[in-house]
Amino acid sequence: MTPEEVRARASGPTAGLATGFAQANLIAVPADWAYDVLLFTQRNPKPCPVLDVTDAGDPRTVLAPGADLRTDLPRYRVWHDGVLTDEPTDVAALWRDDLVAFLIGCSFTFEGALTAAGVPLRHVEQGRNVSMYATDRECRPAGRVHGPMVVSMRWIPAAQVETAARVSGLMPAVHGAPVHAGDPAALGIADLAAPDFGDPVEAAEGDVPVFWACGVTPQAALMASRPPFAITHAPGHMFVTDVPDDEYRAG
Amino acid sequence: MTPEEVRARASGPTAGLATGFAQANLIAVPADWAYDVLLFTQRNPKPCPVLDVTDAGDPRTVLAPGADLRTDLPRYRVWHDGVLTDEPTDVAALWRDDLVAFLIGCSFTFEGALTAAGVPLRHVEQGRNVSMYATDRECRPAGRVHGPMVVSMRWIPAAQVETAARVSGLMPAVHGAPVHAGDPAALGIADLAAPDFGDPVEAAEGDVPVFWACGVTPQAALMASRPPFAITHAPGHMFVTDVPDDEYRAG
Repeated sequence: MTPEEVRARASGPTAGLATGFAQANLIAVPADWAYDVLLFTQRNPKPCPVLDVTDAGDPRTVLAPGADLRTDLPRYRVWHDGVLTDEPTDVAALWRDDLVAFLIGCSFTFEGALTAAGVPLRHVEQGRNVSMYATDRECRPAGRVHGPMVVSMRWIPAAQVETAARVSGLMPAVHGAPVHAGDPAALGIADLAAPDFGDPVEAAEGDVPVFWACGVTPQAALMASRPPFAITHAPGHMFVTDVPDDEYRAG
Repeated sequence: MTPEEVRARASGPTAGLATGFAQANLIAVPADWAYDVLLFTQRNPKPCPVLDVTDAGDPRTVLAPGADLRTDLPRYRVWHDGVLTDEPTDVAALWRDDLVAFLIGCSFTFEGALTAAGVPLRHVEQGRNVSMYATDRECRPAGRVHGPMVVSMRWIPAAQVETAARVSGLMPAVHGAPVHAGDPAALGIADLAAPDFGDPVEAAEGDVPVFWACGVTPQAALMASRPPFAITHAPGHMFVTDVPDDEYRAG
């Protein structure tokens, strides 16, 4: 399927669809909150790599000129005062003239590069969502926006940890190199079998847990910072852009 | 000299001082303009790579925790309604509680990497400032902030253009790979001997002009967009940070 077809037809998670095109996290907040959110992303670029910011009220993005952000994601989340109130498949009726949308890079982009480099992805093999954890590292706050860094974890064969770090490190626009490899306690994670978001994933013999800054971080910050209103994508139901993954490779 | 010594003592241009530490362009605007400036930098990351944004009124930056942005640059420029009104060596008396300071990456950082890779820098050999030109490419505007992309030009031996592109491409946080090599007319530049900023620089036999997005771009946008008040560094009189250049290398 092309990105356009996925945007028109997909009704479930977007992992593995329109392979080779970047997918993005969506966060839309009232203009009054947009500066704090934009500054939060600037101050925390590893978990919050911004691919585009729309003009207030405009549901279009340069990442996919024909798309409509109000209808072209398979599922959304609606938040009032930091509390999840609905998970609709369309937000056209909820859109407001003062909403500013942030499109934030997604690890699906560097997973394609990992696969191309021969690094196995256990969660894909096991048909599960990647495991994600809130850490004990606070992001650098910006105005009213604050929250912990969220990481995704992938089990990587010990001999390939360096390859995984190098390949993802060349994609700083989509989370870049890992923030940590090895003992999860170093990030304040007590139990890898109990992720805060996504699914638990099983290790193979000789695998090491490797942690990357995760695009769920700004959503966790929204929950902690409680803006009066926000719209985000539903987990795994991303916005599929027209931008090839390769555009986010440095050098 | 250490970065701290340069900040305390330098009274002229900072090129070649505190080698190995990143230098930054300064732009401070009233909080009312900060969102437009921040969005402009997000939308134009090649010419405007943001290294830090301060809280309103705060003259300190994480890039150099002991420094004071009001006194530690060798020379400033003061702007009213887009018009240059003064070039003082200290702006402590002009600082306002609502000023937000943007520190933007500088090509001095990738020039160190070019030199290390054996690429000659003609402007350094000739003891001149690098040549800079306003192009016919408009930046993507953000609210009230708009203006042309400004580029710096370096004469590079034809056989080393690829090396220069690869080395700078690994530093996306400080302008990254060139935007163009060869015919200046492709960027709307009529005469390389008449730069809009900096000095003319002479080519050696077999040199090709190579153009990089330039940190003077946001200053040109300020001149075009006319905020009521702004403070910037004076050309070449940069803010010297405590951050090693290597921190801005990807991978």
